[in-house]
Amino acid sequence: MSQFPTQSPGSAETLAESPDRSSILIEAIERSNATACETWLASTDTSDAVHALARLSDDDRVALFSLLTPETGADVLAILPDSQAIEALESLQPPVAARIIEGLSSDERADVIKAMSEEEAEAVLTELDDAIAADVRRLIGYHEDSAGSLMLTEYLAFPETATIREVLADIELNAERYADYNIQYTYVIDSHGRLRGVLPLRNILLAPRSGSVIDIMIPDPIRVADNTTLDGLRAAFREHNYMGLPVVNAAGRLLGVVEQSDLTRADADEADSLYRQSQGIVGGEELRSMPLHLRSRRRLAWLSANIVLNIIAASMIAMQQDTLEAVIALAVFLPIISDMSGCSGNQAVAVTMRELTLGVTRPRDIFRVLIKESTLGLINGIVLGMLIGVVAYMWKHNVYLSAVVGVSLAMNTIIAVCIGGVVPLILKRMKADPALASGPILTTITDMCGFFIVLTLASLLLTRLT
Amino acid sequence: MSQFPTQSPGSAETLAESPDRSSILIEAIERSNATACETWLASTDTSDAVHALARLSDDDRVALFSLLTPETGADVLAILPDSQAIEALESLQPPVAARIIEGLSSDERADVIKAMSEEEAEAVLTELDDAIAADVRRLIGYHEDSAGSLMLTEYLAFPETATIREVLADIELNAERYADYNIQYTYVIDSHGRLRGVLPLRNILLAPRSGSVIDIMIPDPIRVADNTTLDGLRAAFREHNYMGLPVVNAAGRLLGVVEQSDLTRADADEADSLYRQSQGIVGGEELRSMPLHLRSRRRLAWLSANIVLNIIAASMIAMQQDTLEAVIALAVFLPIISDMSGCSGNQAVAVTMRELTLGVTRPRDIFRVLIKESTLGLINGIVLGMLIGVVAYMWKHNVYLSAVVGVSLAMNTIIAVCIGGVVPLILKRMKADPALASGPILTTITDMCGFFIVLTLASLLLTRLT
Repeated sequence: MSQFPTQSPGSAETLAESPDRSSILIEAIERSNATACETWLASTDTSDAVHALARLSDDDRVALFSLLTPETGADVLAILPDSQAIEALESLQPPVAARIIEGLSSDERADVIKAMSEEEAEAVLTELDDAIAADVRRLIGYHEDSAGSLMLTEYLAFPETATIREVLADIELNAERYADYNIQYTYVIDSHGRLRGVLPLRNILLAPRSGSVIDIMIPDPIRVADNTTLDGLRAAFREHNYMGLPVVNAAGRLLGVVEQSDLTRADADEADSLYRQSQGIVGGEELRSMPLHLRSRRRLAWLSANIVLNIIAASMIAMQQDTLEAVIALAVFLPIISDMSGCSGNQAVAVTMRELTLGVTRPRDIFRVLIKESTLGLINGIVLGMLIGVVAYMWKHNVYLSAVVGVSLAMNTIIAVCIGGVVPLILKRMKADPALASGPILTTITDMCGFFIVLTLASLLLTRLT
Repeated sequence: MSQFPTQSPGSAETLAESPDRSSILIEAIERSNATACETWLASTDTSDAVHALARLSDDDRVALFSLLTPETGADVLAILPDSQAIEALESLQPPVAARIIEGLSSDERADVIKAMSEEEAEAVLTELDDAIAADVRRLIGYHEDSAGSLMLTEYLAFPETATIREVLADIELNAERYADYNIQYTYVIDSHGRLRGVLPLRNILLAPRSGSVIDIMIPDPIRVADNTTLDGLRAAFREHNYMGLPVVNAAGRLLGVVEQSDLTRADADEADSLYRQSQGIVGGEELRSMPLHLRSRRRLAWLSANIVLNIIAASMIAMQQDTLEAVIALAVFLPIISDMSGCSGNQAVAVTMRELTLGVTRPRDIFRVLIKESTLGLINGIVLGMLIGVVAYMWKHNVYLSAVVGVSLAMNTIIAVCIGGVVPLILKRMKADPALASGPILTTITDMCGFFIVLTLASLLLTRLT
């Protein structure tokens, strides 16, 4: 349980953080005053604590963890952004990190150790309690999008030979250890550890003490395999609106429980990363507290790929420079056509990504998407083309210029929405990540097409334009 | 509980959907064969059912709901994308819709009715069971980002005068009704309905039957106010890693329970909408099954605002057309500078949005963000500027042209990351939605600056460039 105070979480946002409070923490850390650090944490509102802790220097953050008890350390770890939490753990002495990690739940432990560098992870694993280390090693072996990776290994299971009295005695005996378990459902297993039934706590509550668990359990319950994908889990939880489902291996052995809330968390992470990647933040989350060279390098990796694609697209302009020189007014419209086509195409990408997540579109629905997008592209293309055509006419009073610009934008809008709609499907079929690559592929193709169409149309009508 | 079959959710993705299956459903609907529809649903894998149901025509979907029992109807509603679910409910006869809605949980009911048009919602409300209708009316009054709007009103509460024996008798008596409740925690209230304590189910399990609930409850538990914001809830759940927290009104009366999983769901929705809005899908989720005119209009609303901004930005080029005509090679670089600055700026937007969500940056941290972004912008600007400068030199062998293009991109990169970093903070301070407006504001300013810098530098060096 948390060490932080409980007052008025609702007002957290409106409370002004006292400017001196974070300097008190920094001073306590620098004087290695463990008591002062614990006191500061115990008397600081969580959202102020997040704000202050996230902005400590890396050295101060590591020093803080070394001062705290493992319990407070685990609490602090839980409120830090993931990347800072991992970095701090990697910088700590392995035995110190191990004590803190032991305070986390099984799935959090696996997540944290998976995110650490291989050496650091190995160093921490050897320091962990043997049973915990074995559990972690098993969990980190799972693919990150599988039930095995999401499942909790903290659950209650009783042998099918147990009586209700024995179950109650066990719960009483281990009350402390089970305090953080979700025990709304407990499980019944046979002597080989295979799942036999589910035992809702309410059934235990109402059962005669001398009866056997086998009499009151729900036999042969719904279960998922440990290699079930996120899509499979989503389908399972849509079918069965349970809070949690038992996870079994190929032999039917009970391995853990995956809760619906863990799946929702995985969905939220996926949506976050979709947004981040679509905006060009790749290689994981960036925080401004990270070292400048890392932030710069990660952003540049994406930007330098992008500038190459941009140069390729712009070479279309270079190839028809004579036309452009003759009709310099077109230069004003090239960036507009490039940007607007990109926007139209990105809208189609976003709709496809959403439909893929919801399961209403599948990678092989390319033909249907093309039909739907091309009709929409036709309408939007005509509207936008007319708009830009009117503006061009008002500026230069040349109906041919106006037509070249308008028709080009209309045609390129159709191309952009069709490409935007199907590129994520094609990437998904090729097992590539649509979030990462759809945008750059889309804009390169639409820029090339856009520049080509404008300048080719203009060269055909050159005598009318000059 | 669900009516759908339970086989192998893990393999849902790899199973090929038989092409004839959805036509069987359509035929059953069109022959108004209720049994055939129920059979189809009972024998179809959930993910195939989603795919087929989402692609029915609107009329067929409404007809299907009229044929199904309210229970199956509620199951189907749960697996449809939200927008389709709402549309179907609005098209049904209010009494039919009301029966289906009664099959949902309290928070789902409120969400659904809130999303319906006012008239339709009112028509359904009058058809609902009186107690349920009163509950829904209360819930829909809450701001959508508040604990009141997220909370479930299905919870167990016992008077402080109750004995353990009475509690057990109540659970036994109402076992059926409580079947879908989360009863890991139950609550103790006084005669005015005010929250007095939490009663973990395990405590009941281990308590002597004749004791009073007051003896075994955890008194004065953590609670949140019904008007607590999402940020406040996030802070509360970070502090107290409980599965659920009781929600009370200003007088301390227990109103419901907000579960951590509901908050996670709200976070996932927010991340989804952030991505959608950043890609120019506004006015809610779009599915390709929606009417063409609606999809077109919504996308155009965003695009036409954008084209106006684009024209404003491009007018910078028109103003310095003579320079461009003299150095036509620059026209090749204008779209590159526009696109690259947009990308750099969007990266900074994404980092700020993420830091805002995590709580490590607050709207008043503008100065810190400017410092962090300007140093990064300097490095990335120099790298990108040199890259484009080299390309320009290789093409035209003019060191001045190369310098104009390179320096312009470098300067505009710094501007773009600074603006991208702080625009979301400024919008948040102004209580505007940063997800929606940051992108267009950013690209308009950076385009204008970019075009202005390139063409001004070129006009200063005109004799060297021609």
